[in-house]
Amino acid sequence: MTGRLGRPRAQGPSTSGLSTEEDILLAAAELFCRQGYGSTSTHAIARRAGISQAGLYHYFAAKHSILLSLLLSTVQPSIAFAEMVLSQREPADASLWALCVFDVRALTSDDHNIGTLYLLPEVDDDHFADFRRLRTQLFDSYRTLVADIVGDVPPDAAQPLASLVFGTVESVILRRRTEIDLDPDLTGRLIADAALRILGIGEGRRTSAASSGGLLLDASDQ
Amino acid sequence: MTGRLGRPRAQGPSTSGLSTEEDILLAAAELFCRQGYGSTSTHAIARRAGISQAGLYHYFAAKHSILLSLLLSTVQPSIAFAEMVLSQREPADASLWALCVFDVRALTSDDHNIGTLYLLPEVDDDHFADFRRLRTQLFDSYRTLVADIVGDVPPDAAQPLASLVFGTVESVILRRRTEIDLDPDLTGRLIADAALRILGIGEGRRTSAASSGGLLLDASDQ
Repeated sequence: MTGRLGRPRAQGPSTSGLSTEEDILLAAAELFCRQGYGSTSTHAIARRAGISQAGLYHYFAAKHSILLSLLLSTVQPSIAFAEMVLSQREPADASLWALCVFDVRALTSDDHNIGTLYLLPEVDDDHFADFRRLRTQLFDSYRTLVADIVGDVPPDAAQPLASLVFGTVESVILRRRTEIDLDPDLTGRLIADAALRILGIGEGRRTSAASSGGLLLDASDQ
Repeated sequence: MTGRLGRPRAQGPSTSGLSTEEDILLAAAELFCRQGYGSTSTHAIARRAGISQAGLYHYFAAKHSILLSLLLSTVQPSIAFAEMVLSQREPADASLWALCVFDVRALTSDDHNIGTLYLLPEVDDDHFADFRRLRTQLFDSYRTLVADIVGDVPPDAAQPLASLVFGTVESVILRRRTEIDLDPDLTGRLIADAALRILGIGEGRRTSAASSGGLLLDASDQ
């Protein structure tokens, strides 16, 4: 299911340098976020992507498959990063700091604010069970780290604080609606610092966590 | 434009105990949040409210007028509360604590999570300029209080921290999608405490701010 294996485009090769599948996802993200999911047809997505509707169905069986791909793309990189930091056994405060920065960057780096699609009523449907499962998995990584930091046993006691931190990270989705030029990295660092403050971590330990967390981010950037 | 002055209902008197206008708003909130704004017709709203479509147009000139009313209802009470606390000249930390609790309660107390409608692409239209202006006005109250707390002159320097606090408050809109039984008051207090922690306020001053802030909330409840 990559562009190289796909059938030829209706209107010649892509001018975007992306695969056909990526062209479709980008076109859909723009239309879903600008005019709404319900109001967007697969015909309009195909036209915007510069392919035929039959061409689109070669890559995606239905409109909900495109939405699912977009939703998954907002959580998969952060899950992979969370797994990496959890496996490295760095201190939990450094790991949480880095995860917050990474996740804020992920939620603010796409052009169309795909995270707004989380709030579509349709996302409760069975079609999107995989997305809901992965988002829960990402939240569980936050909860593990928060529980480690606040020293809670069982980890469930850390749930309200983990929800608060996760909510503060995801709040950038709402903020992007009005703060047009939100800087991904600066905002990520502010939110990561805020997360540690919320958990009662004092300035000295925060500075040290940010320093170690920065190394985790550097490692993943390479 | 109240129910008492309106024309009679198509299907007899309301069984909800609400005015006709309130019945329309409640029906629209349910349908917009459950099946989407674009997919909901004024006909469907009228039917759900138990009135004729002509009856609906007696109260609201268009579907966007109903959405505007719903959006305004999510910010007007918090703006009134912010004006009250700012006029009382209580310490800024107590005022901010109380405003956070009040605002979280407001965003979590309606049945259908009207705040999700903030993310509709349509909200950028001219029809909703009044809503955007009032939401900015509410944000300005947060910024004034945050600037007072962190001692910033000019107040613009407090903008990133105020955005962070405002975002953490509004994050309950996203959290309600997955945390079904979010307790408005408990969540409000946790977020208000988090706001003061984010601004670097230590435990003793936080306890005192929460105590004074609780009195401000009690005063408004009466």
